[in-house]
Order: sequence, then structure tokens, then C-alpha cells
Amino acid sequence: MFIYEKVVPFYDVDSMRVVYHGNYIKYLEEARCAFLEKKNLTYTQMEELGFAFPIVELKVKYIKPSKFNDILEVLVSLDSFDNFLTFKYEIRNKETKEKICKAETKQMCVDVTKKESLFEIPQEIVSRLK
Amino acid sequence: MFIYEKVVPFYDVDSMRVVYHGNYIKYLEEARCAFLEKKNLTYTQMEELGFAFPIVELKVKYIKPSKFNDILEVLVSLDSFDNFLTFKYEIRNKETKEKICKAETKQMCVDVTKKESLFEIPQEIVSRLK
Amino acid sequence: MFIYEKVVPFYDVDSMRVVYHGNYIKYLEEARCAFLEKKNLTYTQMEELGFAFPIVELKVKYIKPSKFNDILEVLVSLDSFDNFLTFKYEIRNKETKEKICKAETKQMCVDVTKKESLFEIPQEIVSRLK
Amino acid sequence: MFIYEKVVPFYDVDSMRVVYHGNYIKYLEEARCAFLEKKNLTYTQMEELGFAFPIVELKVKYIKPSKFNDILEVLVSLDSFDNFLTFKYEIRNKETKEKICKAETKQMCVDVTKKESLFEIPQEIVSRLK
Repeated sequence: MFIYEKVVPFYDVDSMRVVYHGNYIKYLEEARCAFLEKKNLTYTQMEELGFAFPIVELKVKYIKPSKFNDILEVLVSLDSFDNFLTFKYEIRNKETKEKICKAETKQMCVDVTKKESLFEIPQEIVSRLK
Repeated sequence: MFIYEKVVPFYDVDSMRVVYHGNYIKYLEEARCAFLEKKNLTYTQMEELGFAFPIVELKVKYIKPSKFNDILEVLVSLDSFDNFLTFKYEIRNKETKEKICKAETKQMCVDVTKKESLFEIPQEIVSRLK
Repeated sequence: MFIYEKVVPFYDVDSMRVVYHGNYIKYLEEARCAFLEKKNLTYTQMEELGFAFPIVELKVKYIKPSKFNDILEVLVSLDSFDNFLTFKYEIRNKETKEKICKAETKQMCVDVTKKESLFEIPQEIVSRLK
Repeated sequence: MFIYEKVVPFYDVDSMRVVYHGNYIKYLEEARCAFLEKKNLTYTQMEELGFAFPIVELKVKYIKPSKFNDILEVLVSLDSFDNFLTFKYEIRNKETKEKICKAETKQMCVDVTKKESLFEIPQEIVSRLK
């Protein structure tokens, strides 16, 4: 479990004065990138190893709204990494601990030089994720 | 079935030269708004009727990438409107007709003045959607 | 003079219920791209010719706010193309003709293969812009 | 002088692999908000005092590009606060100290209840900014 902190910026809030639902996708990615950086596996490092991991599936359940300047905690965990990288997320308000949303993303592995989709996460990636 | 056309803008494309996965959420909303406008039920009109429809669930499956200046067609249909407004979407390349992604959104009805979630879509909304 | 039409999407509006000031930059670019496409000079075509045109200067004066679903007209004109591509813009409400903002962008020419900044717009670009 | 730190997120980078020029506007705002929070004058507090401060002018000079995961420092200073709030900014790479861009924003004061533009920054705002 990894926790990424995010302060809601003004430009992410919509006319209902809550974070626009589409903007949480960006918070998920920021959290995922921070998680992967800890594993020594940034997108740049993935690329140097010859792989890319495009998102192939995204699911979000929105539970409560959040507002400008709220401090959010994005809890991110790697759920599985056999044929896909599957991450699970929970976003909560740091202060009140109320759940804001839950989410899941699936990423496929692509061999960038061969331009081929792989049906298994390569060993050099798996070894870093463990 | 309603078709909304969208030209991919430069600022929606990421460093892999494809539309950033989070940006499709915006295209879904543009298509949904255009659909609802045809039904005489814009967000503004919903608000005047005293209701808001926050997104409570989002699912996207990404099938193929799209690039800067691609012309996309967002096919949107209202799947159900009993307790939630459920929309289904397919985004395809206008020229090649290749599927880019499939998606589903669920919106809950909120009575804005009473600040209450409703567990049924109100009759004045349903009558316009039919 | 070229006119580009843009309907204000919900996700571009902030909690003051007006278009977030930073989002007009995207409308300027959409208008500029549409203008350049007419000249047979999309970013993709520029790239094929071996050039890129990064923005080096941006100025915006905000005059009146615009709201969700407003139809805007972005008037774009190429002001000069000797050492920089300089575009001038005026955004106005299509219906009321009220001025929303005025803007100017300057783009430098970069020779992508040599990775060199050019201090003159190359002849093959100039000939298309005339 | 106030320094705000920002890590470039993946979704802000364009197909040239550099931060899309329009996205720096968001970094300016994040820095400005952090600066104002130190002065006990968040947008929320401004609103409670009955004022809003819409941006009326924006100028940016782009000097060098920045890339995904770069750590940026946004140096923000309040240049004047007589009839407008004028902020000046410099964005630089935290590690190399190279200048990325320079910018200036002007904000007007609006009395929200009277819906009137003010031609002087009110005393209760000025006293906090000093």
C-alpha cells in the first residue's frame, strides 16, 4: 500500500464547486507514477527497458465529492502483474478520512521495438515490482 | 443512437503521440451533453428543474489508440433511466470505423434544493428522455 | 481573417461558472490549427517538412467572461511571419458579439533534424502562408 | 519571493515530449494560491470577504522546454497591489536552475455582492498582503 497526497487545485473544480469527475483520472496516474518510482520503474525507465504500458481498462466509483483545497490521499496498490498490471485505488479526504472514490486500472505490456502486445508481464519488470 | 463528432486536438495527445486515456472522459461528456441538448435537457435546464446528475460510475475499455487530428465519432445511447441515468458509448475512428474505446457512465439524480439523493429519476426528466 | 467556432464544454468552466482563464489557450490553439490546415500546413505537415514551431510568447487580455454552452467565435489572423509566426486573436460571443478576450502568440521555427532554432521562417513555409 | 515546487506530471506533456505551453498557466496558479495561502488569503477567504479576483491579463515568455518528471520551481512575487494584483513569476528547473519561462498576471478586484468592478484593491485585502 502506497499513499500519495494531492491538494485539489482550483482549475480541477467544476461549476458545482466539486472536482470534475474526469480529473480524478489524473490523480490516479500521479499516484501510480509515484508508486512506480519507488520501485525504480518510472515510465522513462520502462521505456529504456523497451516497454510501454498503455491503460486498457479503467473503472471508477464516485462516492463523495471533494472541493478546492481539500487534501486528498490516494491509496494505491498493485493488485496483480501476471498478464496485466492491475492497480487498485482508493481516494479519501486526508482530514475526515471519508472515501471520495474507488478505482481500478489495467495496463497491458507493449514491446516498443517489436510493436507487439505481450500477454505476460516480462521478467525484468516483474522482478522490480516484487 | 446519437453520433457526436470530435476532432482530436493537439493538447489532448500525450508523449506516446496518442490521446491520453483520461481525455476520452471529456469526449464522452461532450457527446452526452449534445445528446441531452437534443432532448431539450441541458445541464442548465436540469438545474432550472431543480436537479443535478453527478456521475457515480465510469467504466472504459480502451481498444485502439487515436492520434492528433483524427476525426472520432462518439456513439452515445441512453441505456436506462429508472434509478440512474446510464449511458453507453462507443468511440470509433470516423474514416476507418475502427473501435477506439467503449464506455459506460452512471449518473445519480440529486434534488438540489433539498440536497437529497433520489433513488428514482423524476417524472419530468423521464418524460423528456422518452 | 479566419473564424473558428467553439462551444464551451462543461469541463472548461470553473467554480465561478465561467471559463477558467487558462482554458482559452486551448481555444487559441484549436483556431490556429484550423487556420493552418486551410493553408495546407498542419503540425504534421510541418513536421514532415522538418520543422516545429514552439510557442515562445503568449499574451492574453481578458475582457468578459463566457459560460458553459456559450458559442464562441475565435477570430485568428497571421500578423507576421518573418522571424516568428505571430498570430493575433479575438474571441467573441457568437450571439451577442461581445468581446471575450484578445490574444497574441509568437512561434519560433526549429529545424527538427539539426535541432537548431532558425531566425527566419523558411521559404517552403512562407510560400504556403502567403 | 515565494518558491513553489512542482513535479511535471505525465498528462501535461505533449507529443513533442515537453510540457504543453498552456499547462504552465496551471502551475502559475498553483504557485499563486500557495503564496496567498501563506498570507491567509485563499480564494475561499477572499470570497468570504466578499471579493473575487479574476485574471484580466496574462503574459508568458517561454525560454526552455521541460520534460515529464522534471522538478520545477515556480518563483512567485507580488509586484503591486494598488488597482490590480500583479504577480510576477519565473519557472526554473530545480536541479539545473535553467529558466523555463517568465510570466506576469494581473487580477482585478470584483465586489461579489454588488457585482461591481473595483478600481482599487480594498483595505482589508491590502492589509493581509503587506
